[in-house]
Amino acid sequence: MKETPFSLRQLADLVGADIQGDPNLMISALNGIDLAGPGEITYILDPKQCIQAQASAASACIVPPGCIVSGKTCLVAEETAVAVAKIHTFLLARPFQAAGIHSSAVIGKNCHIPEQVSIGPQVSIGNNVHLGERVQLKAGVVLEDGVSIGDDSVLHAHAVVGALCSIGKRVIVHAGAVIGSDGFGFATDSQGQHYKKPQVGTVRIDDDVEIGANSCVDRAAFGVTWIKQGVKIDNLVMVGHNVVIGEGSILVAQVGIAGSTTLGHHVVLGAKAGVAGHLHLGDGVMAAATSGIHDNQPNGAIVGGTPAIPAKTWVKSAGVFSRLPEMFKELRRLRKDVAALQTALQDQSTKQHRK
Amino acid sequence: MKETPFSLRQLADLVGADIQGDPNLMISALNGIDLAGPGEITYILDPKQCIQAQASAASACIVPPGCIVSGKTCLVAEETAVAVAKIHTFLLARPFQAAGIHSSAVIGKNCHIPEQVSIGPQVSIGNNVHLGERVQLKAGVVLEDGVSIGDDSVLHAHAVVGALCSIGKRVIVHAGAVIGSDGFGFATDSQGQHYKKPQVGTVRIDDDVEIGANSCVDRAAFGVTWIKQGVKIDNLVMVGHNVVIGEGSILVAQVGIAGSTTLGHHVVLGAKAGVAGHLHLGDGVMAAATSGIHDNQPNGAIVGGTPAIPAKTWVKSAGVFSRLPEMFKELRRLRKDVAALQTALQDQSTKQHRK
Amino acid sequence: MKETPFSLRQLADLVGADIQGDPNLMISALNGIDLAGPGEITYILDPKQCIQAQASAASACIVPPGCIVSGKTCLVAEETAVAVAKIHTFLLARPFQAAGIHSSAVIGKNCHIPEQVSIGPQVSIGNNVHLGERVQLKAGVVLEDGVSIGDDSVLHAHAVVGALCSIGKRVIVHAGAVIGSDGFGFATDSQGQHYKKPQVGTVRIDDDVEIGANSCVDRAAFGVTWIKQGVKIDNLVMVGHNVVIGEGSILVAQVGIAGSTTLGHHVVLGAKAGVAGHLHLGDGVMAAATSGIHDNQPNGAIVGGTPAIPAKTWVKSAGVFSRLPEMFKELRRLRKDVAALQTALQDQSTKQHRK
Repeated sequence: MKETPFSLRQLADLVGADIQGDPNLMISALNGIDLAGPGEITYILDPKQCIQAQASAASACIVPPGCIVSGKTCLVAEETAVAVAKIHTFLLARPFQAAGIHSSAVIGKNCHIPEQVSIGPQVSIGNNVHLGERVQLKAGVVLEDGVSIGDDSVLHAHAVVGALCSIGKRVIVHAGAVIGSDGFGFATDSQGQHYKKPQVGTVRIDDDVEIGANSCVDRAAFGVTWIKQGVKIDNLVMVGHNVVIGEGSILVAQVGIAGSTTLGHHVVLGAKAGVAGHLHLGDGVMAAATSGIHDNQPNGAIVGGTPAIPAKTWVKSAGVFSRLPEMFKELRRLRKDVAALQTALQDQSTKQHRK
Repeated sequence: MKETPFSLRQLADLVGADIQGDPNLMISALNGIDLAGPGEITYILDPKQCIQAQASAASACIVPPGCIVSGKTCLVAEETAVAVAKIHTFLLARPFQAAGIHSSAVIGKNCHIPEQVSIGPQVSIGNNVHLGERVQLKAGVVLEDGVSIGDDSVLHAHAVVGALCSIGKRVIVHAGAVIGSDGFGFATDSQGQHYKKPQVGTVRIDDDVEIGANSCVDRAAFGVTWIKQGVKIDNLVMVGHNVVIGEGSILVAQVGIAGSTTLGHHVVLGAKAGVAGHLHLGDGVMAAATSGIHDNQPNGAIVGGTPAIPAKTWVKSAGVFSRLPEMFKELRRLRKDVAALQTALQDQSTKQHRK
Repeated sequence: MKETPFSLRQLADLVGADIQGDPNLMISALNGIDLAGPGEITYILDPKQCIQAQASAASACIVPPGCIVSGKTCLVAEETAVAVAKIHTFLLARPFQAAGIHSSAVIGKNCHIPEQVSIGPQVSIGNNVHLGERVQLKAGVVLEDGVSIGDDSVLHAHAVVGALCSIGKRVIVHAGAVIGSDGFGFATDSQGQHYKKPQVGTVRIDDDVEIGANSCVDRAAFGVTWIKQGVKIDNLVMVGHNVVIGEGSILVAQVGIAGSTTLGHHVVLGAKAGVAGHLHLGDGVMAAATSGIHDNQPNGAIVGGTPAIPAKTWVKSAGVFSRLPEMFKELRRLRKDVAALQTALQDQSTKQHRK
């Protein structure tokens, strides 16, 4: 088992940081700037916070380059936020302790379950399920028939994975998330009766994905709904059937993506943004919170509003929006003034001709 | 037990379609155009896809009238999407196989449970619950006291149905959906303290309804929240207390309907649309995705935007929205030009008088 | 055990109301105006409903001052809605009946569980959990290690409370709600790789809070996400990490609040409203449904729209929005007319000079 504390030197080496002060200082934990105490390391991300860092009770501070925190041992890291995340994760890491299979868990036939797993109370696993090494299934998780879960993945309480869906390695699925519910597809006849289109595809979730609490990823009508490597999805997000989400994309809370839309890599959709179906958003597209995207977007587009337009335009237009009533009145006044001018000019012209 | 494959003739008869080619061709499954192989049937919904259909490895193709797919056996169906859904459902249909009651399920007193049901692991059923024939309750479903579920309904993992709520026949409730949670009602006194209004009504869900994953339908304060026959509700939808949703209506993902609002039949609310409380939306009302409806809507109204206005107006106004900054500047220029004209005219008039 | 019915006198005394008619009338239940029958009391909140009240089959009616309902015994209450809520709650109240711990529930080590509790089927409780008196955990509730729940709180089916989170007294958590899932925090390196920021804080929920079905309250990165006394949260609401929500605030369905934002007391956020991160909304702020708040708001601000502006301005601007195309055309016409005027004036001026 790993031993805490660690020396500042060890932490610096982990992230390639420089040390200002004593490299032998021992650190047991990382904490927020107001909460950290002696023996702990804290961090600032902005040189403006130097004074706050100085006032912290922490023994050391991770800082961005160009920071001078007098009287405090500092660890200077280029990509400061990344360094903080890595060091924090390192300090918290504990060797996997397999809890085994809880006696109340129900496990189907023909499953592959390694010894090194933790399967909690009330878990329900169907037939032909394949679990990787060190998988953790918290209380009440449901895996239907034919599901596979990669090494080191964690499914939190009551997460549900539907039949035949596959989940990669180091994936985190938060509580109540539903992977592989039916896509929303109906054919409607001339009488207005809806016929369900069977949803016979699956969901494929690649490595290092995180899926938020009570989020939903629907299975494909045919083929797969595909969440690629490193995608991070927040809570209460809706991913429709046959959607493809490119590597490293980020979907903030309450986002919704309609069926068959594909996202390139590193797309960022702000909270509550919605994307219509059958679209493509190029690599690196960014959408402001609450955007409603109705059209394809080229690589790197930055959009906002509903229907979404370039974000800069949206910000400017939104800024004018509150002046609409004033503009409306001004238009009326202008019309009146122009009409008066037209009459006056006509009068003058008449007079001139008479002369 | 039903036998696959089926002849094209059998499938054609099922939907009243014409056959172009060999009616004795045997079909085992339906699949997407890129995924279908020999022995399978695929489909196109648009005559423009004829060439794609030709390139498919499928043995046959369901097509709309007016389509010619050379060298491929075709099934020509008038309401093509409906025919596809019906044939696909037919090909997938299997006789109900009762799995019985899982040993880990908990069942209360005085319940009516037919022999032909499938009750999965960790299911919890209260007292006085009535299940119809061939009901399927997947893992972790919770039915509270006095719930009734009609024949052939399926409740997916962790669906919850609150006390005394009733669900019709052939209803599908997806994973994590909550039927019959309390409506959101409080009375606030002059000190700002909120008193809960007890929610003593129930939820009534009629036949052929589908309710999406993690959606919520609140019980009525008094009386019932009522989802009528054939309504289809997507994931993460919120239906408030005492709402009534008319036959065949469709609520796309993340829609929200506030308390006591009633919808006519065949209303369609696009994704993320919201409807305020105590309104009535007439039959066939359609709302664009993300609409925010604050007013009653007559039968057949098609609306968009927030607050919702006629969709055509909304599209036009939204098109002009991005030009607001330009309009604002033009207004200023016009004012300046008009002022200059006024001055010039005044000058001229003065000169004229002096002459 | 409490005895129904109660005399009108007892109910009047409960809320300090006046009686018009027979104080000895016995009342067994409260019901909606169309549903109430003999022996029941109903209510109206608006004097305009007097005629409806008269037509009701109820034996008595709670009314606001100034109401005269001829031939019906009335209970006249100042804060009528509050009186109704209190009387209804009183009539429904039953002494707590401890159901004990269901045999299928799983309970960890070192837990404090009083005798007077009801722990339902399939409940899973971790280690070091502390339950107050008369706590009710419905089927499938999950409490992770170190959770504490105050007296008289009720957690509905499948509610999940993450490790170390604390819940106060008389709190109601509805089905499927998730308290204490990880906050959404990542640090992204120059290669676009996201590193999870460990979320080591907790959630603190104070007394008398209600949290809706399938809502999510994320745990803090450090410290606590804090829902203060008397806050009422509807279904499918998202509360981000380190958010603080002041006393008596109300979050209607599908609201989302991003990380580190703080709300004063008695803030009201309408359905689907969103609040960006790291903001402060002052006491009593009200946001219209679907608002998108991007800026701090002073005490008492009333806002609407996205980005949110004062609600009055928003309503006016929204009213003009539908006339944008017309305004755009009028601007063009004005420009044309002004240009014509400019030319005409120039012509006249030229003629004048020639004379």
